[in-house]
Amino acid sequence: MEKEAHLSAAYPFWPRLTPEEREAILGSCVEMTYEKGSGIHRSDMTCRGALLLLSGTLRAYILSEEGREVTLFRIHAGESCVLSASCLLDAIVFDIFIDAAADARALVIPTSVLHPIMERNPYVGLYLYKQATERFSDVMWTMQQILFMGVDRRVAIFLWDELTRQEGPVLKITHDELARNIGSAREVVTKVLRYFSEEGIVQLKRGRLEVLDREKLRALL
Amino acid sequence: MEKEAHLSAAYPFWPRLTPEEREAILGSCVEMTYEKGSGIHRSDMTCRGALLLLSGTLRAYILSEEGREVTLFRIHAGESCVLSASCLLDAIVFDIFIDAAADARALVIPTSVLHPIMERNPYVGLYLYKQATERFSDVMWTMQQILFMGVDRRVAIFLWDELTRQEGPVLKITHDELARNIGSAREVVTKVLRYFSEEGIVQLKRGRLEVLDREKLRALL
Repeated sequence: MEKEAHLSAAYPFWPRLTPEEREAILGSCVEMTYEKGSGIHRSDMTCRGALLLLSGTLRAYILSEEGREVTLFRIHAGESCVLSASCLLDAIVFDIFIDAAADARALVIPTSVLHPIMERNPYVGLYLYKQATERFSDVMWTMQQILFMGVDRRVAIFLWDELTRQEGPVLKITHDELARNIGSAREVVTKVLRYFSEEGIVQLKRGRLEVLDREKLRALL
Repeated sequence: MEKEAHLSAAYPFWPRLTPEEREAILGSCVEMTYEKGSGIHRSDMTCRGALLLLSGTLRAYILSEEGREVTLFRIHAGESCVLSASCLLDAIVFDIFIDAAADARALVIPTSVLHPIMERNPYVGLYLYKQATERFSDVMWTMQQILFMGVDRRVAIFLWDELTRQEGPVLKITHDELARNIGSAREVVTKVLRYFSEEGIVQLKRGRLEVLDREKLRALL
């Protein structure tokens, strides 16, 4: 697939650009490859620009002072990430790290090209800020549940208890049952389990789940 | 000041509206008064709309399951708050509470009027999402520092130690010195102290600070 097809599929503002603006983006965006584990964005790096992932997976996380990483969200192929262009968005003061979680290829639109287009064309800023709002909203949910409410810990404790009560790593339990057991809401439990699944701790199946990584689960207790 | 003057001063999209859109907003927005302590927004209340504060102060916070409140930000007179219109912004999934921290008056543009205008006019969405991004960015900073990094606790411990070493509530110390003492950055300390100041724990003065509420400070240790 050529560049323009990728860009027009990922960016809803594409039809709103003038032909000159499209030319400027097409002529300046570059395909980058990132090896698994390499750093793509951090607060002290220069601002790369808006990133459109063609293959692989990126992981956005924050670091505590003790070096504990908390995954905020993942970016999958076909998705864009505007937080790597946070210099475009005034008033993003938050330190976020983005690494390649698997070998990845991305199209990067440089800040220097995107910035003047964004100043002229409200649809570009609308898209960037809308995406930032969506990501932040997810992130805040994660931070609230994981760091503040301790739901991840309660789910982990429950799973650990169940594991020690039976043979084998497969637990037969629905999200609804789990939620009632720990006194939380089903949708909250579903999100926490999805988080555990992306971290490789469990594998989710209909009506049951398999614990894949006991050590990681234990670390949450 | 009449309604239109307030609206055009607070909303940068005002000149971008058609005369009909302005009429629709002017004809539908209502002035509300809130008594100190009353609830203005919470996830299970109907979505009020975009709120422009005319006087008083609002406080946005989250609640832990143990009922601990963490103040995320405050809204002052002349400022607008789009998070009370979170139903307008798809994908805000985060539970936030907004109360009146002091008797307050606000102009509220109902969601039902703002929504179709936002669909037509990109400048309206641009403003709403930009403001949401700014608020979220601040909020994430607060959550990271307060809940995750424990900087608030380290600052509180330092202030408490200093208080017990001397007479009276006034500490002569710059933000820079404080930051070096607790191994953090000056700008981080400045934000934490501003947070303490808004919570009524300290009063900030050039080169020194006064502890106003020893009990609240102690609660942070």
